[in-house]
Amino acid sequence: MKAIVNVFLKAGVLDSQGKAVHHALNSLQFSNVEDVRVGKQIILKLNETDKEKAMSDVTKMCEDLLANTVIEDYTIELV
Amino acid sequence: MKAIVNVFLKAGVLDSQGKAVHHALNSLQFSNVEDVRVGKQIILKLNETDKEKAMSDVTKMCEDLLANTVIEDYTIELV
Repeated sequence: MKAIVNVFLKAGVLDSQGKAVHHALNSLQFSNVEDVRVGKQIILKLNETDKEKAMSDVTKMCEDLLANTVIEDYTIELV
Repeated sequence: MKAIVNVFLKAGVLDSQGKAVHHALNSLQFSNVEDVRVGKQIILKLNETDKEKAMSDVTKMCEDLLANTVIEDYTIELV
C-alpha cells in the first residue's frame, strides 16, 4: 500500500519559498499568477494491508516526524 | 483556477532526503515502511479561465523554473 502525504504551511504563516517562486515567475513574464504556495509531498511505500492500521500509523508518523504541526497542516491519501 | 504541480525525482535518481526520512522513521519503530520518496508540491493560483491556456502556461513554468527536468519529473492537475 502507498500513502501520499502532503505537508503545507498553515494559512496565515508566511511562505517565503512560495513568495520567491511567485517573484521569479513574474520576472519570467508569467503575469497571470496570483499566489504560490510550496509544500512537501512524501510518498511512503508501506508493508501493510490493513487500511485503518496504515492510516493510524501514517498519522502518527506525521505528528512525530513528517510535519511541524505548529505551523504546518498535512493530508494523507492511501492508494 | 488553481494548478497543483507535483515535482519529484525521477526513478533511479538517489533521493537522499527520502533515505533520511526512511531511516528516521525506522529509528522511531515504524518498521512497516519499505520506501520513502520526498518531492515538492507547488500550488499556483492563476488568474485564468481558459483551461488549455492555463495548462500550457503551467507546463512552461515547470520547464523553465519549477522542475529540473534532467533529474525531476512533474505532474500538473488543474482544479
